[in-house]
Amino acid sequence: MRDFSASKAYFERAAKVIPGGIYGSKSPGFLVPGRYPYYLSRGKGSRIFDVDGNEFIDYLCGYGSQIVGYGNPAVDGPAFEQARKGDLLNQPHPAMVELAERLVALVEGMNWAVFVKNGTDATTLATSIARADTGKQIIIAADGAYHGAANWCSTNVFPVFTQAEQRDLRFFPYNDIAALEACFREERGKIACLILTPYHHPTYKPQQLPTPEFLQAAERLCRAEGAWFIVDDIRANFRLDVRGSHVYFGAHPDLVAMGKALANGYPISVLMGSEKLRKTASSFFITGTYWMSAVPMIAALATLDEMERMGGTARLARLGGMLREGLEKLGREAGFGARVSGPPAIPYLTFDEDPDLYLNQRFCAAMADRGVFMHPHHNWFMSLAHTEDDIAQTLEAARGAFQELRPLPHAY
Amino acid sequence: MRDFSASKAYFERAAKVIPGGIYGSKSPGFLVPGRYPYYLSRGKGSRIFDVDGNEFIDYLCGYGSQIVGYGNPAVDGPAFEQARKGDLLNQPHPAMVELAERLVALVEGMNWAVFVKNGTDATTLATSIARADTGKQIIIAADGAYHGAANWCSTNVFPVFTQAEQRDLRFFPYNDIAALEACFREERGKIACLILTPYHHPTYKPQQLPTPEFLQAAERLCRAEGAWFIVDDIRANFRLDVRGSHVYFGAHPDLVAMGKALANGYPISVLMGSEKLRKTASSFFITGTYWMSAVPMIAALATLDEMERMGGTARLARLGGMLREGLEKLGREAGFGARVSGPPAIPYLTFDEDPDLYLNQRFCAAMADRGVFMHPHHNWFMSLAHTEDDIAQTLEAARGAFQELRPLPHAY
Repeated sequence: MRDFSASKAYFERAAKVIPGGIYGSKSPGFLVPGRYPYYLSRGKGSRIFDVDGNEFIDYLCGYGSQIVGYGNPAVDGPAFEQARKGDLLNQPHPAMVELAERLVALVEGMNWAVFVKNGTDATTLATSIARADTGKQIIIAADGAYHGAANWCSTNVFPVFTQAEQRDLRFFPYNDIAALEACFREERGKIACLILTPYHHPTYKPQQLPTPEFLQAAERLCRAEGAWFIVDDIRANFRLDVRGSHVYFGAHPDLVAMGKALANGYPISVLMGSEKLRKTASSFFITGTYWMSAVPMIAALATLDEMERMGGTARLARLGGMLREGLEKLGREAGFGARVSGPPAIPYLTFDEDPDLYLNQRFCAAMADRGVFMHPHHNWFMSLAHTEDDIAQTLEAARGAFQELRPLPHAY
Repeated sequence: MRDFSASKAYFERAAKVIPGGIYGSKSPGFLVPGRYPYYLSRGKGSRIFDVDGNEFIDYLCGYGSQIVGYGNPAVDGPAFEQARKGDLLNQPHPAMVELAERLVALVEGMNWAVFVKNGTDATTLATSIARADTGKQIIIAADGAYHGAANWCSTNVFPVFTQAEQRDLRFFPYNDIAALEACFREERGKIACLILTPYHHPTYKPQQLPTPEFLQAAERLCRAEGAWFIVDDIRANFRLDVRGSHVYFGAHPDLVAMGKALANGYPISVLMGSEKLRKTASSFFITGTYWMSAVPMIAALATLDEMERMGGTARLARLGGMLREGLEKLGREAGFGARVSGPPAIPYLTFDEDPDLYLNQRFCAAMADRGVFMHPHHNWFMSLAHTEDDIAQTLEAARGAFQELRPLPHAY
């Protein structure tokens, strides 16, 4: 096990002035307490460094936000140049126009863009536009889908603290066409929208890709009801297809929300929509003090350029495929039902024999001991800063980790 | 009138790919269309520069976020240094602990801090914690108060698009004790919280300071009901008293939300609370991908230091007082009922004879012509980058603007 004494000292101080010390997805309990660093000091390329000087090959990538690597000069160069001139001004910077033009040209089926800050701002705005446009209130979403941390989206994943919003949410099991049909039947005439991630990436569970029949049914039901189809692409955007993950899966949404990788970690998200919803979107008072800051917009433009230069989604898929194949093979050789789910660029390892994820926690902790930052409860992310060498080192570490956890042969 | 042809060209492009071209508080219609720049390129100290090369002395300060001036090296220096090492990492940076410790020591009555991104994230979290802690749903707020752009807070200021949230909101006229008492009486046993800005700064209207009796009544009613008292200090924080604007007015809230000036424009907000609410706050899953980014936290620490070095709230009040006195005197001399409302550090000019703000629009447009950026519909902000010389130049411009608008003497 690594030395995390500086991390622990900071955490003790934090516990006095911050509820839980560290909250939300970054809290120690969401990883494996004591086996991961609690505080990081820097990142470079595919590597992160903690306050004790430990170095890790990182497969969480700032929860997906790093797609061309930490501290990439092709992004930070133009971003810092604008930061020196001014980031948050009274009015937008021309980069806002340039980024909107670029995304509208790029993302399939989308005719306009609105920039916000949190991913949640984009998904919330999407559902609000759908409600305003239809005059209806019901939102249908998949069981266990994460659409953000606002009150309306926390009703299924986390405990409900606002009763008002939960009245208007309906849930169904992902990929279950009959259950989705039942939702639409029961709420007929009251449904504003269906919101789906482009594929299902629930926390604590293997990832699920959509069946083509499911997506077709979703679109057919929305059209018949007059409800809008929202794709929440915040976690996956730019990793599967830069035109939007809906293109990768052959879906045709009316609204698409993107964030995270959009500007390689600079804080910005975007809601995009089809022509049919432009008028309703224009009628909204959409505002936030930080939403038109220039630097993240310039970073987003640079991220798109740099992604292409570094090999784009094809390279992400190839690297992710190498990792998947290697992990599954090494796992099987050590006697485990190791399975990597999801698209190659956004992999997640689980063990068939481990429904409670205890084995997964032990595996990831053993990987952290070996200098690899993987997450036992949340999907991982490939970045273009990962190299074949990183994958080789990771698989070498995995060989050791699997051996360490190897099931004992039955006594004879 | 100044040349805004580059601004207009960008706006024409924007109108094709962004609903409304520019949305929310930055839309041309919220200022005076055609008389202000639509796009800015940079800022330095107290000045902003638009895409046509026009320069303005700025009294909007990035909607309040600039408190030590645009491009202040004492803030940008340490912020850029961390930005080069990494901003958004998988886990927080130690600066999060340092900033929480500093704010808890500084802000009176507050024992813990949670960092979020938008101001709305902080006010929403405050009301959600109050609801969770009390098990009650009703939020009481002042008519026309702006607490953010989330669904729950847009029900009184902007059109309602979600019916669910509005059921649980109750409004009363600011400073009206009898009306507030009636709210508490009618909703007895169902009230989670009262949320107030430290003083009333409604859009399109003169600002109102609280009466001591009103604040006392608010606190008495909350205690008797077992409801929590939230102060939304996002617009005013650090300009009246660094210990919190509630100290300036002698209020005793249980929860305080701050943002905007907190990090001189770097995107971060904070919710702070009293010991009694720590346990409930700890039980929340509070999360956002961008919420633990290191750079805004380091900028916030540097902003606090730099504010003190530049003269702090005393200097802001003195500069704002000079501006107020000068504007009111010049206005009176030109025959107008010019009145500057609010605390000196956050002034707002209206004309007694101008309930519809048409005269205010003409005055502010005439000031923009003269290179001064004031807002006809939204309060202004003093920053520590403003100088006595800026105020003198501003008043010289105001002399010309008042003369330009001077009411014609009655024909004789």
